[in-house]
Amino acid sequence: MKKRILVLGGNGFIGCHLVEELALRDVRLRVLARSKNQHVPPVKGVEYRYANFSDSIDVAEALVDVDIVVHLISTTVPATANLDPAADIKGNLLPTISLLQQMHELNVPRLVFISSGGTVYGDAKVSPIPENHIRNPLSSYGIVKVAIENYISMFSSQYGLKSLILRVSNPYGPRQGHIGIQGVIPTFFHRILSGEEIKIWGDGTVIRDYLYIDDLIGFITKSIEKNLVGIYNVGSGQGTALKDVLSIIENVTNIKAKVNYLPPRGYDVKNVVLDITNGRNALDWTPQISLHEGCIKYWQWVKRGSSGNRLPGLGTKHRFSFP
Amino acid sequence: MKKRILVLGGNGFIGCHLVEELALRDVRLRVLARSKNQHVPPVKGVEYRYANFSDSIDVAEALVDVDIVVHLISTTVPATANLDPAADIKGNLLPTISLLQQMHELNVPRLVFISSGGTVYGDAKVSPIPENHIRNPLSSYGIVKVAIENYISMFSSQYGLKSLILRVSNPYGPRQGHIGIQGVIPTFFHRILSGEEIKIWGDGTVIRDYLYIDDLIGFITKSIEKNLVGIYNVGSGQGTALKDVLSIIENVTNIKAKVNYLPPRGYDVKNVVLDITNGRNALDWTPQISLHEGCIKYWQWVKRGSSGNRLPGLGTKHRFSFP
Repeated sequence: MKKRILVLGGNGFIGCHLVEELALRDVRLRVLARSKNQHVPPVKGVEYRYANFSDSIDVAEALVDVDIVVHLISTTVPATANLDPAADIKGNLLPTISLLQQMHELNVPRLVFISSGGTVYGDAKVSPIPENHIRNPLSSYGIVKVAIENYISMFSSQYGLKSLILRVSNPYGPRQGHIGIQGVIPTFFHRILSGEEIKIWGDGTVIRDYLYIDDLIGFITKSIEKNLVGIYNVGSGQGTALKDVLSIIENVTNIKAKVNYLPPRGYDVKNVVLDITNGRNALDWTPQISLHEGCIKYWQWVKRGSSGNRLPGLGTKHRFSFP
Repeated sequence: MKKRILVLGGNGFIGCHLVEELALRDVRLRVLARSKNQHVPPVKGVEYRYANFSDSIDVAEALVDVDIVVHLISTTVPATANLDPAADIKGNLLPTISLLQQMHELNVPRLVFISSGGTVYGDAKVSPIPENHIRNPLSSYGIVKVAIENYISMFSSQYGLKSLILRVSNPYGPRQGHIGIQGVIPTFFHRILSGEEIKIWGDGTVIRDYLYIDDLIGFITKSIEKNLVGIYNVGSGQGTALKDVLSIIENVTNIKAKVNYLPPRGYDVKNVVLDITNGRNALDWTPQISLHEGCIKYWQWVKRGSSGNRLPGLGTKHRFSFP
C-alpha cells in the first residue's frame, strides 16, 4: 500500500520543496496549510486543506488515514518569539500537544518533527555540537522547541509513537521569505539588490551552519523512506561567520552592501555548527551543495523572477523511491 | 529597609512552613494563595491575598513594592499533569511567563523558584545527579518545569533578573496532602492508619531522595538571606527505595501495611538521588533530619491531630536573621 503522508505546513518554505519532492514518489500526499504558497502553484495529485494549526478539529480530520505526519509548522521565528512568549506557546506548543494526543487516538504511528538546531542547544560547549549535548536554549523559540521535543519523546516512550526529531540548522534557498525575520541569506540578497541598508547585530562574527534547501529535503525524504526514528542534527557541518556570508553574497551579486552594525542581541547564540555524523551514518546522506554554490543557485532563482519550479532540483545523490 | 517578600503559594505545603519561618525574621511578608491552609491559621503580621495565579491583574497588584518573589505555586502534581498537559501549560507555564514579564515591568529584582529535582533530569546517567546533568524529563510535570527554568534563565540573561532555581527532591512532612497524589509518605501513613491498601507501581525498588520539610525551609530561608542566585539541587543526597520507605513507616507506626503491587508507570523515573554538594558549599547548609527521624516527626504530628504549629520546628543550625 502507498504510504500516506500528511505534511503540516506544506506550503511554507521547507514544506513546498518537500511536497514537490515527495510527489515524485509513489505516495499519497495531503497538505495542511494556513494559506497558498506565494511562489508556486499547488502540486498535482496532492490534497490541500487550508486551516489554522490551532483548530484541532481540522487537524484531526486531516489525520484520518495517515501513516506519517511531517510537522513543519512554526507560527513564530526566533526574532519574534521572544517578543511574545505566550503567543509562541499558544501557537506552537499547545497545538502540537493536541496533535500528539490526536495521533495517539487515531492510531497514526509516525511523526517527523523539524526542530531547531540553531536554538535548542544555546551557547554550546563544543563545536560541532552533537545531539547529546545539553540543551540550554536562550530564546523563547528554542525553549518552545525543546518543550515540543520533550513531549514528542514522552509520547514515544509512553504510547509507542515512532518519532523522528530533526534539529535543522539554518536552511536557505529559493522561496524563503526575505522580510528580515525568516532567513538571513534571502534578507541579505533582498537588501543588497534594493540598495537598502543591511543590519547586523554584533560584529558579524556570529557563526552559523547554513544548509541548502535541497540537501535538507534530501535528508527528510531519505529519513521517511528508511523509517528513521530518533533525534538527528541536520546541517552542513560547516560554520560560516555572518560577515563571510555577506562577502559571498557581494561576490555572487557583484554588488557592495551597505552595512549597519548594531549592538548584539542577548538571545543570539554566538556559534552553532552541528555535528552531523549520526545523520550521515544513519542515512548514507551527505550535504552536496556548498554555501557559495547555494548562494549562486539562490541568485539564479532571484534573477528568474523568484517563481516557478526549483532549479536545478535534487541531484541524483538524493533521489530515492519509496518501496 | 526590611526585605519585602511575596510568597506565591504561601498556603501550600511548602509555603505555610516557609511563611511561618520567614515571619520570625525582620521582613515584610505578603502571601498570594488560592485558599486558606487547612491545617494552620494565617500568620500574624503577614498580608494575605487570595487569587488565582492565572489572574494576572491580581498577581501584578501583589508584586507592588516587593523585593523578592518566592514562587511555590504548582497547580498540578506529577501524577496528574500527564493526564492533561495543556492544563499543566495553561495553569503553570503561561502564568509564570506573565509573572516574569510583570516583575520586569515593575522592577522586582529577585525570584526564587521551586523546580523539581525528581522530574527535570529524567532517567539520569549518574547518581547522585549534579545540577549540570542533561535534562530529559519523562513527564509533562518535568517538561513544564524545564520550560519554566529556561524562561527564568532567559529573563535573567536578557533583563538582569536575579534568579534562584531550586531543584527540590521529594520533600515531606507535616501538613503535606495525603490524597495519593502529592507525597508518598503522607499517603502511606494515611493508608496504613486507615487500613486501606497501599498501591505501589512497580516492584518498590524505585529510589527517591526524601527531604524533611524543615531541612528544605532551612535551605530556602538561608538562600534568601544570602541572596543566592543560580541553580541548585536541594535534597538529602541519600536514596531510599520505596519499599524501604514503607518498612520505616511500618516500623514507626507499628502497623503492617497491605500492599498491592501494580505495573510500573512509564513516566516514573527509576532512580533520583540529588548531588547536593553545590548547595552545601554555597550556604554552609546540610540536611539535619534522617528519613527515619522525619517519619517519627510526621507520626507525632499525625497523633496530635494533624493541626497546629510545627513540632519541634527548625533546629538552631537553620536559624538565620536577615540583615
